[in-house]
Amino acid sequence: MTTLLDIETPALLLEQDKLMKNLRSMNARAKALGVSLRPHLKTAKSADIARLVFDGATGPITVSTMREVSYFIDHGFTDIFLAVGVSPDKLRRLNQMASDSVTIKIAVDGQSMATALATEEPDPGAHIGAMIEIDCGDSRGGVSSDSEELLQIATTLDGSGLAIAGVFTHGGQSYDCVGIDAIREVAREEHHAIIHATERLRHAGFTCPHISLGSTPTATFAEAMDGVTEVRAGVYMFQDLQQQGLGVCALDELALSALATVIGLHTDRNVALVDAGGLALSKDRGASANEPDPGFGLVCTVDGDIIHNLHVVGVSQEHGKISTIDGTALPAHLLQPGTRVRILPNHACMMAAAHDHYNVIGHDQTITRWNRVNGW
Amino acid sequence: MTTLLDIETPALLLEQDKLMKNLRSMNARAKALGVSLRPHLKTAKSADIARLVFDGATGPITVSTMREVSYFIDHGFTDIFLAVGVSPDKLRRLNQMASDSVTIKIAVDGQSMATALATEEPDPGAHIGAMIEIDCGDSRGGVSSDSEELLQIATTLDGSGLAIAGVFTHGGQSYDCVGIDAIREVAREEHHAIIHATERLRHAGFTCPHISLGSTPTATFAEAMDGVTEVRAGVYMFQDLQQQGLGVCALDELALSALATVIGLHTDRNVALVDAGGLALSKDRGASANEPDPGFGLVCTVDGDIIHNLHVVGVSQEHGKISTIDGTALPAHLLQPGTRVRILPNHACMMAAAHDHYNVIGHDQTITRWNRVNGW
Repeated sequence: MTTLLDIETPALLLEQDKLMKNLRSMNARAKALGVSLRPHLKTAKSADIARLVFDGATGPITVSTMREVSYFIDHGFTDIFLAVGVSPDKLRRLNQMASDSVTIKIAVDGQSMATALATEEPDPGAHIGAMIEIDCGDSRGGVSSDSEELLQIATTLDGSGLAIAGVFTHGGQSYDCVGIDAIREVAREEHHAIIHATERLRHAGFTCPHISLGSTPTATFAEAMDGVTEVRAGVYMFQDLQQQGLGVCALDELALSALATVIGLHTDRNVALVDAGGLALSKDRGASANEPDPGFGLVCTVDGDIIHNLHVVGVSQEHGKISTIDGTALPAHLLQPGTRVRILPNHACMMAAAHDHYNVIGHDQTITRWNRVNGW
Repeated sequence: MTTLLDIETPALLLEQDKLMKNLRSMNARAKALGVSLRPHLKTAKSADIARLVFDGATGPITVSTMREVSYFIDHGFTDIFLAVGVSPDKLRRLNQMASDSVTIKIAVDGQSMATALATEEPDPGAHIGAMIEIDCGDSRGGVSSDSEELLQIATTLDGSGLAIAGVFTHGGQSYDCVGIDAIREVAREEHHAIIHATERLRHAGFTCPHISLGSTPTATFAEAMDGVTEVRAGVYMFQDLQQQGLGVCALDELALSALATVIGLHTDRNVALVDAGGLALSKDRGASANEPDPGFGLVCTVDGDIIHNLHVVGVSQEHGKISTIDGTALPAHLLQPGTRVRILPNHACMMAAAHDHYNVIGHDQTITRWNRVNGW
């Protein structure tokens, strides 16, 4: 039987029991809120994991790249929302991928994009729908729910062959929240904005069947989603130190980690080196507001038990530098060269993206390989 | 003929003329300094590019992962230095890859690692050599050139089947320098440390055939390398904003960029969105000390001309947010949705690592695909 000592490092580990618990938890949230869940697969990028969300079947999903669209169609998914804006050339290719049995929704984030798509693509076909993006305070893409631009976009789309499928918003500002009350407030902002936009569109005579919102923090703490049809979230599947810092999860709910090997121990400068660096861990510092700052990740034994007071204090491309958080002496007996450790991620999406597969640790400790679809 | 308008974005672009100029320039530096060049392929991760360093042939190379070792052997390279520490299991596998015609050198960064390898691997075979790492001030791996530990490591290796191939150092502190004089000082530190270590080893009766140092900044500005046998550098092949900020190269020498498409324009909040985000650009902020701060990259037209006063001010996974550096209004006519732009990298190694191939723009503007070997 393959064990964690047989896997060449660095490598990506996924604990199936924790994954399943996280998946069940969000399924229960969506059910309690009376909405359907459209999981965002930009984190997991795996059909094996997507199917687990739906009890082995397929279901509506969100994705972030053209390659994910194609991959999930190949794996039997038939209701796909690409939640990143597309250029006309991508719309043409999506049109070739959609069919009587595969519906693809695209994001339209403003009037200028609506014009570009409507002008260059007079007839994208009946299987592509446009989701108009509403900005509920994140200030990335989308238009305000009370803007004139919202109705202009709908008018532009209505006059083109690109049908309005609905509206969506993403309360990305929830990642900057301090405390659960603040996250609940962002959830209310998401909810208010999307309902307001829907009402204005319907009042103006447009259909708006799909009403979509979400982020892992807001989906976790929202108190109500009345009038909403679906919630989107992705990182909840694995959780990470950023989510833990936000109060979304506990440390023992983190399902993902990087397996690494100690390749140097320098007690004179109180540093141990591991063979997981800026590529294997990512350089994401999204958990830097946590107390204490995990640096580039917290360090666990090979069995997944957190080693108190250790963090990855620096990374270069293939080196991670471990030291103590409080500057006291390293536990050298735990960090002898050749020893394996696990590093918990600041940001699961970014850590996973460098790895082409998961080493999935099953309930019985067997290890199975699940592939990911990286790139574009 | 494929043009930059036919390539689906985000995508990695490499300008061959600039690449060739950078390669020739470092070849000339090594020749002038009287040392051989052992290019570090952790940046390019491409046999096509490695061969260009050697005028179409092969030569001595440096790599950072086990997968690179295997890939470059498959592509005919026979003298390979893996400059990241290895655990005993990796040493066993390297031993299987080495042969009468393939020599592999490994890094030994301290006494604890030497003991681990010597204990667990009594006979790694005649085709593996150990390069002892010297810390010349970077404080990552290695031992001081005047430490007792240096001679202890040599003694430990000497008693094992792992032959001493030489010593190496990397003046990584050159990345924090302000001004060329400071980089020259780091080059002197590298030089002094490696020569001192060599002399002590030889005086103690050990052979030390390979004397290796380098980083792109120090290789560019070193005044002398007397007694050194080889210089290592990698990022010089592409250059990037970090190197430009250090004074190592000019902006028009950057050979690598990410091709992206504008997918949103919001003049009300002075932001344009592109489909290259934290994955396609990387979240590296190594150029943050540049004046002005390029954020996550500088923005060029599709033809590669820098658009004055623009930078990528923020990234999420698949979104890049472009705004002006000084807060004045965006040049909306250059950023209409559907428009293609190029983004220059803060750190070429990190940007390239997310992409599985290069779109190489030839002298005649033809575009050729060269693959990369990512992962581990």
